[in-house]
Amino acid sequence: MLQIHGVPISVHTRKVIVAAIEKGLPYELRQVVPVVPDSLPANWRAVSPTGLIPVISDGDFTLGDSAAICAYLERAHPQRPLYPAEPRALGRAMWFENYAGGTIFRHIVHPLFIEVFVQPNVNRIAPDQQKIDAVLNTALPETFGYLESELGMSRFLAGDTLSMGDVAVVSNLITFQYIGFRLDAARYPRLAALFQDVVMYPAVREAIQKEQATVQGMGLNGDCVRAALN
Amino acid sequence: MLQIHGVPISVHTRKVIVAAIEKGLPYELRQVVPVVPDSLPANWRAVSPTGLIPVISDGDFTLGDSAAICAYLERAHPQRPLYPAEPRALGRAMWFENYAGGTIFRHIVHPLFIEVFVQPNVNRIAPDQQKIDAVLNTALPETFGYLESELGMSRFLAGDTLSMGDVAVVSNLITFQYIGFRLDAARYPRLAALFQDVVMYPAVREAIQKEQATVQGMGLNGDCVRAALN
Repeated sequence: MLQIHGVPISVHTRKVIVAAIEKGLPYELRQVVPVVPDSLPANWRAVSPTGLIPVISDGDFTLGDSAAICAYLERAHPQRPLYPAEPRALGRAMWFENYAGGTIFRHIVHPLFIEVFVQPNVNRIAPDQQKIDAVLNTALPETFGYLESELGMSRFLAGDTLSMGDVAVVSNLITFQYIGFRLDAARYPRLAALFQDVVMYPAVREAIQKEQATVQGMGLNGDCVRAALN
Repeated sequence: MLQIHGVPISVHTRKVIVAAIEKGLPYELRQVVPVVPDSLPANWRAVSPTGLIPVISDGDFTLGDSAAICAYLERAHPQRPLYPAEPRALGRAMWFENYAGGTIFRHIVHPLFIEVFVQPNVNRIAPDQQKIDAVLNTALPETFGYLESELGMSRFLAGDTLSMGDVAVVSNLITFQYIGFRLDAARYPRLAALFQDVVMYPAVREAIQKEQATVQGMGLNGDCVRAALN
Protein backbone atom coordinates (compact mmCIF):
# COMPACT_ATOMS: atom_id res chain seq x y z
CA MET A 1 0.00 0.00 0.00
CA LEU A 2 1.09 3.57 -0.65
CA GLN A 3 2.69 5.06 2.44
CA ILE A 4 2.74 8.84 2.90
CA HIS A 5 5.29 10.12 5.40
CA GLY A 6 4.25 13.53 6.71
CA VAL A 7 1.53 15.24 8.68
CA PRO A 8 -1.88 16.13 7.22
CA ILE A 9 -1.79 19.79 8.30
CA SER A 10 1.40 20.22 6.23
CA VAL A 11 0.70 22.31 3.14
CA HIS A 12 2.69 19.93 0.94
CA THR A 13 1.65 16.62 2.52
CA ARG A 14 -2.00 17.57 1.97
CA LYS A 15 -1.42 17.80 -1.81
CA VAL A 16 -0.31 14.16 -1.88
CA ILE A 17 -3.20 13.01 0.33
CA VAL A 18 -5.67 14.81 -1.98
CA ALA A 19 -4.08 13.16 -5.03
CA ALA A 20 -4.31 9.71 -3.42
CA ILE A 21 -7.97 10.24 -2.48
CA GLU A 22 -8.86 11.67 -5.89
CA LYS A 23 -7.30 8.69 -7.66
CA GLY A 24 -8.87 6.14 -5.31
CA LEU A 25 -5.52 4.88 -3.99
CA PRO A 26 -5.53 3.31 -0.52
CA TYR A 27 -2.77 4.88 1.59
CA GLU A 28 -1.33 4.77 5.06
CA LEU A 29 -0.18 8.01 6.69
CA ARG A 30 3.04 7.67 8.69
CA GLN A 31 3.15 10.71 10.94
CA VAL A 32 6.42 12.67 10.71
CA VAL A 33 6.59 16.29 11.91
CA PRO A 34 10.00 17.76 11.01
CA VAL A 35 9.67 20.61 13.53
CA VAL A 36 9.28 18.03 16.32
CA PRO A 37 12.57 16.11 16.28
CA ASP A 38 11.16 13.34 18.51
CA SER A 39 8.66 12.47 15.75
CA LEU A 40 11.37 11.51 13.26
CA PRO A 41 11.90 7.81 12.54
CA ALA A 42 15.44 6.52 13.10
CA ASN A 43 16.15 6.16 9.37
CA TRP A 44 14.54 9.47 8.44
CA ARG A 45 17.43 10.98 6.46
CA ALA A 46 17.65 7.79 4.40
CA VAL A 47 13.94 8.15 3.60
CA SER A 48 14.05 11.94 3.09
CA PRO A 49 17.42 13.22 1.80
CA THR A 50 16.39 16.82 2.55
CA GLY A 51 14.65 16.02 5.82
CA LEU A 52 11.49 17.56 4.37
CA ILE A 53 7.98 16.11 4.12
CA PRO A 54 6.17 14.56 2.34
CA VAL A 55 7.91 11.42 1.17
CA ILE A 56 6.08 8.41 -0.25
CA SER A 57 6.97 4.74 -0.30
CA ASP A 58 5.22 2.69 -2.96
CA GLY A 59 6.53 -0.86 -2.72
CA ASP A 60 10.32 -0.54 -2.97
CA PHE A 61 10.10 2.95 -4.51
CA THR A 62 10.71 5.99 -2.30
CA LEU A 63 10.20 9.55 -3.51
CA GLY A 64 10.21 13.00 -1.93
CA ASP A 65 9.08 16.47 -3.05
CA SER A 66 5.32 16.94 -3.32
CA ALA A 67 5.46 18.12 -6.94
CA ALA A 68 7.53 15.09 -8.00
CA ILE A 69 5.24 12.77 -6.02
CA CYS A 70 2.09 14.25 -7.57
CA ALA A 71 3.61 13.94 -11.06
CA TYR A 72 4.50 10.31 -10.33
CA LEU A 73 0.98 9.52 -9.06
CA GLU A 74 -0.54 11.29 -12.09
CA ARG A 75 1.57 9.28 -14.54
CA ALA A 76 1.11 5.96 -12.70
CA HIS A 77 -2.64 6.49 -12.15
CA PRO A 78 -3.89 8.77 -14.92
CA GLN A 79 -7.56 8.36 -13.99
CA ARG A 80 -9.17 11.55 -12.60
CA PRO A 81 -6.33 13.81 -13.76
CA LEU A 82 -5.10 16.61 -11.51
CA TYR A 83 -3.01 18.29 -14.23
CA PRO A 84 -4.47 19.65 -17.50
CA ALA A 85 -3.51 18.00 -20.79
CA GLU A 86 -3.27 21.23 -22.82
CA PRO A 87 0.31 22.62 -22.73
CA ARG A 88 -0.42 26.20 -21.60
CA ALA A 89 -2.87 25.06 -18.94
CA LEU A 90 -0.35 22.45 -17.75
CA GLY A 91 2.31 25.16 -17.53
CA ARG A 92 0.00 27.42 -15.53
CA ALA A 93 -1.02 24.59 -13.18
CA MET A 94 2.64 23.87 -12.44
CA TRP A 95 3.47 27.57 -12.14
CA PHE A 96 0.83 27.97 -9.43
CA GLU A 97 1.83 24.70 -7.78
CA ASN A 98 5.40 25.94 -7.53
CA TYR A 99 4.34 29.50 -6.63
CA ALA A 100 2.38 27.95 -3.76
CA GLY A 101 5.51 26.16 -2.51
CA GLY A 102 8.10 28.83 -3.31
CA THR A 103 6.25 32.04 -2.49
CA ILE A 104 3.02 31.51 -0.54
CA PHE A 105 4.46 28.84 1.75
CA ARG A 106 7.98 30.15 2.02
CA HIS A 107 7.16 33.82 2.48
CA ILE A 108 3.84 33.62 4.33
CA VAL A 109 2.66 30.32 5.82
CA HIS A 110 6.02 28.92 6.91
CA PRO A 111 7.30 32.05 8.70
CA LEU A 112 3.90 32.52 10.38
CA PHE A 113 3.82 28.85 11.43
CA ILE A 114 7.29 29.18 12.92
CA GLU A 115 6.27 32.23 14.96
CA VAL A 116 2.81 31.25 16.17
CA PHE A 117 3.26 27.49 16.55
CA VAL A 118 6.90 26.36 16.69
CA GLN A 119 8.29 29.15 18.85
CA PRO A 120 5.74 28.85 21.68
CA ASN A 121 5.04 25.11 21.48
CA VAL A 122 8.38 23.58 20.51
CA ASN A 123 11.02 26.16 21.44
CA ARG A 124 9.09 27.65 24.39
CA ILE A 125 9.74 31.23 23.37
CA ALA A 126 7.31 34.00 22.53
CA PRO A 127 6.38 34.76 18.90
CA ASP A 128 8.13 37.76 17.34
CA GLN A 129 5.29 40.14 16.53
CA GLN A 130 7.51 42.24 14.24
CA LYS A 131 8.17 39.22 12.05
CA ILE A 132 4.46 38.40 11.97
CA ASP A 133 3.58 41.98 11.04
CA ALA A 134 6.20 42.06 8.29
CA VAL A 135 4.55 39.02 6.66
CA LEU A 136 1.02 40.34 7.09
CA ASN A 137 1.82 43.84 5.84
CA THR A 138 4.18 43.09 2.96
CA ALA A 139 4.37 39.51 1.63
CA LEU A 140 0.70 38.76 2.19
CA PRO A 141 -0.91 41.68 0.29
CA GLU A 142 1.59 41.31 -2.57
CA THR A 143 0.95 37.57 -2.89
CA PHE A 144 -2.79 37.49 -2.31
CA GLY A 145 -3.17 40.55 -4.57
CA TYR A 146 -1.33 38.74 -7.36
CA LEU A 147 -3.55 35.65 -6.98
CA GLU A 148 -6.66 37.86 -6.97
CA SER A 149 -5.50 39.47 -10.23
CA GLU A 150 -5.01 36.06 -11.85
CA LEU A 151 -8.54 34.92 -11.06
CA GLY A 152 -11.68 36.15 -12.80
CA MET A 153 -10.81 34.97 -16.31
CA SER A 154 -11.61 31.39 -15.36
CA ARG A 155 -13.11 29.58 -12.38
CA PHE A 156 -9.82 27.93 -11.41
CA LEU A 157 -6.25 29.15 -11.74
CA ALA A 158 -5.37 27.05 -14.80
CA GLY A 159 -8.76 27.01 -16.52
CA ASP A 160 -12.28 25.86 -15.82
CA THR A 161 -11.39 22.64 -14.04
CA LEU A 162 -9.54 22.13 -10.79
CA SER A 163 -5.82 21.35 -11.00
CA MET A 164 -3.02 20.69 -8.54
CA GLY A 165 -2.23 24.42 -8.87
CA ASP A 166 -5.49 25.22 -7.11
CA VAL A 167 -5.01 22.47 -4.53
CA ALA A 168 -1.52 23.74 -3.71
CA VAL A 169 -2.63 27.37 -3.33
CA VAL A 170 -5.66 26.49 -1.22
CA SER A 171 -3.63 24.04 0.86
CA ASN A 172 -1.66 27.07 2.02
CA LEU A 173 -4.86 28.98 2.79
CA ILE A 174 -6.15 26.08 4.90
CA THR A 175 -3.06 25.90 7.11
CA PHE A 176 -2.92 29.73 7.25
CA GLN A 177 -6.36 29.62 8.87
CA TYR A 178 -5.54 26.72 11.20
CA ILE A 179 -2.77 28.82 12.73
CA GLY A 180 -5.20 31.62 13.48
CA PHE A 181 -5.16 33.98 10.49
CA ARG A 182 -8.16 34.89 8.35
CA LEU A 183 -8.64 35.26 4.61
CA ASP A 184 -10.15 38.71 4.03
CA ALA A 185 -12.98 37.93 1.61
CA ALA A 186 -13.88 41.61 1.21
CA ARG A 187 -10.36 42.45 0.01
CA TYR A 188 -9.75 39.21 -1.92
CA PRO A 189 -13.22 38.09 -3.10
CA ARG A 190 -12.02 35.93 -5.99
CA LEU A 191 -9.42 34.20 -3.85
CA ALA A 192 -12.07 33.58 -1.19
CA ALA A 193 -14.36 32.10 -3.88
CA LEU A 194 -11.52 29.86 -5.06
CA PHE A 195 -10.93 28.74 -1.49
CA GLN A 196 -14.61 27.87 -1.13
CA ASP A 197 -14.73 26.00 -4.47
CA VAL A 198 -11.60 24.00 -3.72
CA VAL A 199 -12.45 22.98 -0.14
CA MET A 200 -15.83 21.71 -1.40
CA TYR A 201 -14.15 19.58 -4.08
CA PRO A 202 -14.86 16.04 -2.82
CA ALA A 203 -11.26 14.82 -2.48
CA VAL A 204 -10.15 18.04 -0.74
CA ARG A 205 -13.19 18.00 1.53
CA GLU A 206 -12.45 14.40 2.52
CA ALA A 207 -8.79 15.24 3.23
CA ILE A 208 -9.83 18.18 5.42
CA GLN A 209 -12.35 16.09 7.34
CA LYS A 210 -9.76 13.38 7.99
CA GLU A 211 -7.21 15.86 9.33
CA GLN A 212 -9.46 17.42 11.98
CA ALA A 213 -8.24 15.05 14.69
CA THR A 214 -4.68 16.26 14.02
CA VAL A 215 -5.85 19.89 14.00
CA GLN A 216 -7.41 19.44 17.42
CA GLY A 217 -4.55 17.34 18.76
CA MET A 218 -2.09 20.11 17.86
CA GLY A 219 -4.26 22.75 19.47
CA LEU A 220 -4.93 24.51 16.16
CA ASN A 221 -8.12 26.30 15.22
CA GLY A 222 -10.18 24.46 12.59
CA ASP A 223 -13.37 26.50 13.00
CA CYS A 224 -13.17 28.63 9.85
CA VAL A 225 -12.10 25.79 7.58
CA ARG A 226 -14.77 23.45 8.96
CA ALA A 227 -17.38 26.20 8.58
CA ALA A 228 -16.52 26.44 4.87
CA LEU A 229 -17.45 22.76 4.42
CA ASN A 230 -21.07 23.32 5.46
CA MET B 1 9.45 33.34 -31.61
CA LEU B 2 10.00 32.00 -28.11
CA GLN B 3 11.49 34.68 -25.88
CA ILE B 4 13.49 33.67 -22.83
CA HIS B 5 13.94 36.38 -20.22
CA GLY B 6 16.98 35.68 -18.08
CA VAL B 7 20.73 35.35 -18.25
CA PRO B 8 22.49 32.27 -19.61
CA ILE B 9 24.78 31.81 -16.61
CA SER B 10 21.67 31.48 -14.40
CA VAL B 11 21.27 27.89 -13.23
CA HIS B 12 17.56 27.96 -13.99
CA THR B 13 17.63 29.95 -17.24
CA ARG B 14 20.13 27.46 -18.65
CA LYS B 15 17.60 24.61 -18.21
CA VAL B 16 15.13 26.42 -20.48
CA ILE B 17 17.80 27.27 -23.06
CA VAL B 18 18.86 23.61 -23.16
CA ALA B 19 15.24 22.51 -23.61
CA ALA B 20 14.74 24.98 -26.48
CA ILE B 21 17.95 23.83 -28.21
CA GLU B 22 17.15 20.13 -27.68
CA LYS B 23 13.69 20.54 -29.19
CA GLY B 24 14.93 22.65 -32.09
CA LEU B 25 12.94 25.75 -31.10
CA PRO B 26 14.28 29.12 -32.28
CA TYR B 27 14.47 31.50 -29.31
CA GLU B 28 15.55 35.01 -28.47
CA LEU B 29 17.28 35.66 -25.13
CA ARG B 30 16.22 38.89 -23.43
CA GLN B 31 18.89 39.62 -20.88
CA VAL B 32 17.55 40.22 -17.36
CA VAL B 33 19.84 39.92 -14.33
CA PRO B 34 17.77 40.25 -11.13
CA VAL B 35 20.83 41.04 -8.99
CA VAL B 36 21.54 44.05 -11.23
CA PRO B 37 18.46 46.28 -10.79
CA ASP B 38 19.42 48.44 -13.81
CA SER B 39 19.01 45.41 -16.06
CA LEU B 40 15.30 45.02 -15.29
CA PRO B 41 12.79 46.06 -17.96
CA ALA B 42 10.21 48.64 -16.86
CA ASN B 43 7.35 46.11 -16.81
CA TRP B 44 9.38 43.38 -15.15
CA ARG B 45 7.04 42.58 -12.26
CA ALA B 46 4.17 42.21 -14.74
CA VAL B 47 6.28 39.70 -16.68
CA SER B 48 7.69 37.94 -13.59
CA PRO B 49 5.31 38.02 -10.59
CA THR B 50 8.11 36.80 -8.29
CA GLY B 51 10.83 38.91 -9.91
CA LEU B 52 12.75 35.69 -10.57
CA ILE B 53 14.20 34.38 -13.82
CA PRO B 54 13.60 32.69 -16.18
CA VAL B 55 10.29 33.73 -17.71
CA ILE B 56 9.25 32.85 -21.26
CA SER B 57 6.92 34.59 -23.67
CA ASP B 58 5.52 32.39 -26.42
CA GLY B 59 3.14 34.50 -28.46
CA ASP B 60 0.68 35.97 -25.96
CA PHE B 61 1.53 33.34 -23.34
CA THR B 62 3.86 34.26 -20.48
CA LEU B 63 5.14 31.72 -17.95
CA GLY B 64 7.68 31.73 -15.14
CA ASP B 65 9.38 29.01 -13.07
CA SER B 66 11.88 26.87 -14.93
CA ALA B 67 10.19 23.59 -13.98
CA ALA B 68 6.80 24.82 -15.20
CA ILE B 69 8.38 26.21 -18.38
CA CYS B 70 10.21 22.95 -19.11
CA ALA B 71 6.99 20.97 -18.53
CA TYR B 72 5.16 23.32 -20.90
CA LEU B 73 7.84 22.98 -23.60
CA GLU B 74 7.84 19.19 -23.16
CA ARG B 75 4.07 18.96 -23.59
CA ALA B 76 3.92 21.43 -26.48
CA HIS B 77 6.95 19.95 -28.27
CA PRO B 78 7.17 16.28 -27.26
CA GLN B 79 9.92 15.48 -29.74
CA ARG B 80 13.28 14.66 -28.11
CA PRO B 81 11.80 14.21 -24.62
CA LEU B 82 13.64 15.55 -21.58
CA TYR B 83 11.44 13.72 -19.08
CA PRO B 84 11.09 9.91 -18.92
CA ALA B 85 7.73 8.33 -19.75
CA GLU B 86 7.87 5.62 -17.07
CA PRO B 87 6.25 6.85 -13.82
CA ARG B 88 9.07 6.08 -11.37
CA ALA B 89 11.72 7.49 -13.67
CA LEU B 90 9.57 10.59 -14.22
CA GLY B 91 9.22 11.01 -10.46
CA ARG B 92 12.97 10.69 -9.99
CA ALA B 93 13.73 13.15 -12.81
CA MET B 94 11.44 15.73 -11.19
CA TRP B 95 12.82 14.97 -7.71
CA PHE B 96 16.34 15.76 -8.89
CA GLU B 97 15.15 18.78 -10.88
CA ASN B 98 13.53 20.19 -7.75
CA TYR B 99 16.43 19.10 -5.51
CA ALA B 100 18.70 21.06 -7.86
CA GLY B 101 16.57 24.18 -7.39
CA GLY B 102 15.63 23.76 -3.73
CA THR B 103 18.83 22.37 -2.24
CA ILE B 104 21.86 22.62 -4.56
CA PHE B 105 21.05 26.12 -5.78
CA ARG B 106 19.51 27.50 -2.61
CA HIS B 107 22.05 26.12 -0.15
CA ILE B 108 25.23 26.12 -2.25
CA VAL B 109 25.35 27.99 -5.56
CA HIS B 110 23.15 30.96 -4.67
CA PRO B 111 24.84 31.82 -1.36
CA LEU B 112 28.29 31.40 -2.95
CA PHE B 113 27.25 33.58 -5.93
CA ILE B 114 26.04 36.28 -3.55
CA GLU B 115 29.34 36.28 -1.66
CA VAL B 116 31.85 36.01 -4.47
CA PHE B 117 30.04 37.92 -7.23
CA VAL B 118 27.22 40.15 -5.96
CA GLN B 119 28.92 41.49 -2.84
CA PRO B 120 32.14 42.68 -4.52
CA ASN B 121 30.72 43.59 -7.96
CA VAL B 122 27.26 44.95 -7.20
CA ASN B 123 27.29 45.96 -3.55
CA ARG B 124 31.01 46.86 -3.43
CA ILE B 125 31.66 45.01 -0.20
CA ALA B 126 34.03 42.16 0.56
CA PRO B 127 32.83 38.54 0.53
CA ASP B 128 32.15 37.00 3.94
CA GLN B 129 34.63 34.14 4.16
CA GLN B 130 32.79 32.58 7.10
CA LYS B 131 29.63 32.25 5.00
CA ILE B 132 31.62 30.75 2.13
CA ASP B 133 33.32 28.27 4.47
CA ALA B 134 30.01 27.27 6.02
CA VAL B 135 28.69 26.32 2.56
CA LEU B 136 31.87 24.53 1.52
CA ASN B 137 32.23 22.60 4.78
CA THR B 138 28.62 21.67 5.51
CA ALA B 139 26.03 22.03 2.73
CA LEU B 140 28.41 21.02 -0.05
CA PRO B 141 29.68 17.67 1.29
CA GLU B 142 26.18 16.69 2.41
CA THR B 143 24.65 17.52 -0.96
CA PHE B 144 27.40 16.25 -3.26
CA GLY B 145 27.72 13.15 -1.07
CA TYR B 146 24.02 12.43 -1.50
CA LEU B 147 24.25 12.84 -5.30
CA GLU B 148 27.32 10.59 -5.39
CA SER B 149 25.37 7.91 -3.48
CA GLU B 150 22.49 8.11 -5.96
CA LEU B 151 24.73 7.53 -8.95
CA GLY B 152 26.30 4.21 -9.89
CA MET B 153 23.10 2.22 -10.39
CA SER B 154 22.53 3.96 -13.72
CA ARG B 155 24.42 6.31 -16.00
CA PHE B 156 22.09 9.24 -15.33
CA LEU B 157 20.12 10.18 -12.23
CA ALA B 158 16.75 8.92 -13.47
CA GLY B 159 17.92 5.98 -15.57
CA ASP B 160 20.09 5.31 -18.57
CA THR B 161 19.07 8.35 -20.58
CA LEU B 162 19.57 12.02 -19.80
CA SER B 163 16.64 13.88 -18.22
CA MET B 164 15.98 17.40 -17.01
CA GLY B 165 16.99 16.11 -13.57
CA ASP B 166 20.56 15.69 -14.83
CA VAL B 167 20.50 19.02 -16.68
CA ALA B 168 19.30 20.83 -13.57
CA VAL B 169 21.95 19.27 -11.30
CA VAL B 170 24.78 19.88 -13.78
CA SER B 171 23.55 23.41 -14.48
CA ASN B 172 24.36 24.13 -10.84
CA LEU B 173 27.81 22.54 -11.20
CA ILE B 174 28.56 24.72 -14.25
CA THR B 175 27.77 28.00 -12.49
CA PHE B 176 29.56 26.75 -9.34
CA GLN B 177 32.73 26.48 -11.44
CA TYR B 178 32.20 29.81 -13.23
CA ILE B 179 32.30 31.55 -9.84
CA GLY B 180 35.64 29.98 -9.05
CA PHE B 181 34.94 26.72 -7.19
CA ARG B 182 36.05 23.27 -8.32
CA LEU B 183 34.30 19.91 -8.38
CA ASP B 184 36.53 17.46 -6.51
CA ALA B 185 36.59 14.49 -8.88
CA ALA B 186 38.65 12.39 -6.46
CA ARG B 187 36.04 12.75 -3.72
CA TYR B 188 32.98 12.69 -6.01
CA PRO B 189 34.00 10.55 -9.00
CA ARG B 190 30.49 9.58 -10.09
CA LEU B 191 29.26 13.16 -9.89
CA ALA B 192 32.29 14.29 -11.90
CA ALA B 193 31.50 11.60 -14.50
CA LEU B 194 27.89 12.80 -14.65
CA PHE B 195 29.11 16.37 -15.12
CA GLN B 196 31.31 15.26 -18.00
CA ASP B 197 28.53 13.22 -19.65
CA VAL B 198 25.99 16.03 -19.37
CA VAL B 199 28.20 18.87 -20.60
CA MET B 200 29.06 16.76 -23.66
CA TYR B 201 25.39 16.18 -24.44
CA PRO B 202 24.95 18.19 -27.66
CA ALA B 203 22.22 20.60 -26.50
CA VAL B 204 24.04 21.29 -23.23
CA ARG B 205 27.35 21.72 -25.00
CA GLU B 206 25.78 24.20 -27.42
CA ALA B 207 24.21 26.17 -24.56
CA ILE B 208 27.57 26.34 -22.76
CA GLN B 209 29.38 27.50 -25.89
CA LYS B 210 26.79 30.23 -26.51
CA GLU B 211 27.11 31.58 -22.97
CA GLN B 212 30.89 32.07 -23.00
CA ALA B 213 30.59 35.71 -24.10
CA THR B 214 28.45 36.37 -21.02
CA VAL B 215 30.89 34.44 -18.81
CA GLN B 216 33.73 36.63 -20.02
CA GLY B 217 31.68 39.83 -19.95
CA MET B 218 30.82 39.23 -16.29
CA GLY B 219 34.46 38.52 -15.45
CA LEU B 220 33.74 34.90 -14.51
CA ASN B 221 36.10 31.99 -15.00
CA GLY B 222 35.01 29.60 -17.76
CA ASP B 223 38.29 27.68 -18.03
CA CYS B 224 37.28 24.45 -16.27
CA VAL B 225 33.91 24.19 -17.97
CA ARG B 226 35.37 24.92 -21.41
CA ALA B 227 38.13 22.38 -20.77
CA ALA B 228 35.47 19.72 -20.14
CA LEU B 229 34.09 20.29 -23.66
CA ASN B 230 37.33 19.24 -25.35
